[in-house]
Amino acid sequence: MATGTGDFGVLSAVEGIRLSSVEAGVRYQNRRDVVVVEIAEGSTVAGVYTLNAFCAAPVKIARQHLSDNQGKCRYWLINTGNANAGTGKQGAVDALACCQSLAELAGCDPSEVMPFSTGVIGERLPAGRITAALPGALEQLQPDNWLSAAKGILTTDTRPKGLTRTLQLNGRTVTITGISKGAGMIKPNMATMLAYVATDLSVDYAQLQALLSDAVSQSFNRITVDGDTSTNDCCMLAATGRAGVAFTELSDSDKAQFRGALNEVLQSLAIQIIEDAEGASKFVTIDVSGGETSKECLQVAYAVAESPLVKTALTASDPNWGRILAAVGRAGVPALDVDSVSVSLDAVPLVERGQLSADYSEEKGQAVMNQEAITISIDLGRGDAKERVWTSDLSEEYVRINASYRS
Amino acid sequence: MATGTGDFGVLSAVEGIRLSSVEAGVRYQNRRDVVVVEIAEGSTVAGVYTLNAFCAAPVKIARQHLSDNQGKCRYWLINTGNANAGTGKQGAVDALACCQSLAELAGCDPSEVMPFSTGVIGERLPAGRITAALPGALEQLQPDNWLSAAKGILTTDTRPKGLTRTLQLNGRTVTITGISKGAGMIKPNMATMLAYVATDLSVDYAQLQALLSDAVSQSFNRITVDGDTSTNDCCMLAATGRAGVAFTELSDSDKAQFRGALNEVLQSLAIQIIEDAEGASKFVTIDVSGGETSKECLQVAYAVAESPLVKTALTASDPNWGRILAAVGRAGVPALDVDSVSVSLDAVPLVERGQLSADYSEEKGQAVMNQEAITISIDLGRGDAKERVWTSDLSEEYVRINASYRS
Repeated sequence: MATGTGDFGVLSAVEGIRLSSVEAGVRYQNRRDVVVVEIAEGSTVAGVYTLNAFCAAPVKIARQHLSDNQGKCRYWLINTGNANAGTGKQGAVDALACCQSLAELAGCDPSEVMPFSTGVIGERLPAGRITAALPGALEQLQPDNWLSAAKGILTTDTRPKGLTRTLQLNGRTVTITGISKGAGMIKPNMATMLAYVATDLSVDYAQLQALLSDAVSQSFNRITVDGDTSTNDCCMLAATGRAGVAFTELSDSDKAQFRGALNEVLQSLAIQIIEDAEGASKFVTIDVSGGETSKECLQVAYAVAESPLVKTALTASDPNWGRILAAVGRAGVPALDVDSVSVSLDAVPLVERGQLSADYSEEKGQAVMNQEAITISIDLGRGDAKERVWTSDLSEEYVRINASYRS
Repeated sequence: MATGTGDFGVLSAVEGIRLSSVEAGVRYQNRRDVVVVEIAEGSTVAGVYTLNAFCAAPVKIARQHLSDNQGKCRYWLINTGNANAGTGKQGAVDALACCQSLAELAGCDPSEVMPFSTGVIGERLPAGRITAALPGALEQLQPDNWLSAAKGILTTDTRPKGLTRTLQLNGRTVTITGISKGAGMIKPNMATMLAYVATDLSVDYAQLQALLSDAVSQSFNRITVDGDTSTNDCCMLAATGRAGVAFTELSDSDKAQFRGALNEVLQSLAIQIIEDAEGASKFVTIDVSGGETSKECLQVAYAVAESPLVKTALTASDPNWGRILAAVGRAGVPALDVDSVSVSLDAVPLVERGQLSADYSEEKGQAVMNQEAITISIDLGRGDAKERVWTSDLSEEYVRINASYRS
């Protein structure tokens, strides 16, 4: 199951970026499972990575390579079917072997290759199958392969995810195109496996990292399917500079425009993950306002978003506001006065200042819950902070998928 | 579904305690849904209550009554079918009306009645149906009604929960009998709805409260089904003194013996809840050792116990240690060195110092996972602290139950 239409429009090429996806047989046959993204010389790359302490070998290496080279990177090498996580020192050897092989074929330094893996945890990476597929992958690099790359990085996802936004900046057309994957083990903590975004604007390393971190904090770091942070989360952003415009030359309003477009792309990629969450039949936006701090708004939002009881009520289209209140009440907000708390389903007031709204009727609540997309708004009534997270429901299909898929 | 046998032996009477359960039609017909527990004059009562900020009206009143009377209490009045939570001021009025009615019939002060409710959240308590059932309930009070009371407090539970332990102290027989209920919305935070325990030992209020709090911290506060803390959790302990022995007169070793027996009763009641968890097919003990602090051991234990991915792997009897590592890694332990972490399934080493154990085979792991009762041991390898929690798996049946039951 999935929600939404899955229609994200056409993915435009970004000058300086070429992509390919090939069948390497990492875990399954007849499936494109290796994606190579070539980034033109002179580009800048920024990345954010999972904070899971058991972060996978490729994540450690990718982070190290980019940091050593201060944002210089020529290739992203991505495989599905095997996460190369929990594989100890052998995992690092295997990931480095893939980087080495690609570097030799492409004529660059191995540290200019960033490896990424997603799939089953705890099995050795079949590096030989990946390296054997690399000559073909390099041959097939094309600027207009974003959609096939978006398909090539999927695992339990039911559909590809992507978005393009173009802007006019200083008289030039600047493009931002991104793709992402993810459907389960989703509570990104800095980023989610996997998102790849590129622009042809010129942006220096420190600025690019800041732009990416800001955008991630309001997109990938605001979604949850099951509260489980992946060992392999990564979100990468490349700036090729080929549009002939530099971020530093932009006026403040143009900078804001670029930031807005970048945020829009990342937010859309994050939301597409939630729409395609494992077993999802609902797309749920949780708006928490009236908090004293942003932190307590997020505590409440995640307590509601990750409550199995709220999520199963959503599956059943049951306007079970008692479960929402129970989750708010256990979120750990210090000295929360429940008589200040109000809750709405879309525009229907459910709870006003701790009590069932006088206007509320089961029919009104039911009408909202029958929708595929639902906003739960929670006002804590004690401050000005607010936060938004996105989540899905918890269905029998989620259990079926995760009781059968070896992630 | 449920795990274990559900066989807890005979529940012995506790001198000074009489119980009854009757049909009041609170939500369903032909179902004993009101339980009255009479506590002899001169007894002492202690209680621990949910820390959910949205704690229900009866919880607030019960806590207030016991505190006002410094541990004196004559009746516990318990209904199922309606939690009287999220009901605002009307909820307090309704709960107090029930106390008032019972007090008039029994000839005590309303503050000597403690009300408890469990069931659907957010609907008005049908106090009239409960008060109408009270005369019959008082007539039927009997010392040997523990089992029928254990049945009378159930909601989605599939079977009653209880335990009796007797000890010889100062030449007298001292009895401890307790009952509990709970199958979902289970992550007690101070106690879980509902547990009622009594002893005929004489114990003063402050000491009784300390004994109860200690026992709860190692029993009800160490279990989780879904991470959702109920609005109505309560665990009560009455000491009638009718055995003719006082706690203060006991030798240190007898005090320890009583403490041990009380802990055993509460731990069994807590474990029986996990065995009967909604949709449960596995009973899982999570032992975390080698932590720097007890707190970080609990963080790790709950991250694993509440991970939907670990729980669905358990449902599938899949020795998916990668998901266990991923949950450990995201638990938020500061500066966790994953190369010090070891994990076993029962006696089978899975991960040693961050890497798959050389001795591990899928067959060995599978053999453990096929069992109904499984212990996951996690050694953080950085200190001497350890903690244990108990949990269940996450099955399609859990989703079905909670997508259809209006809790």
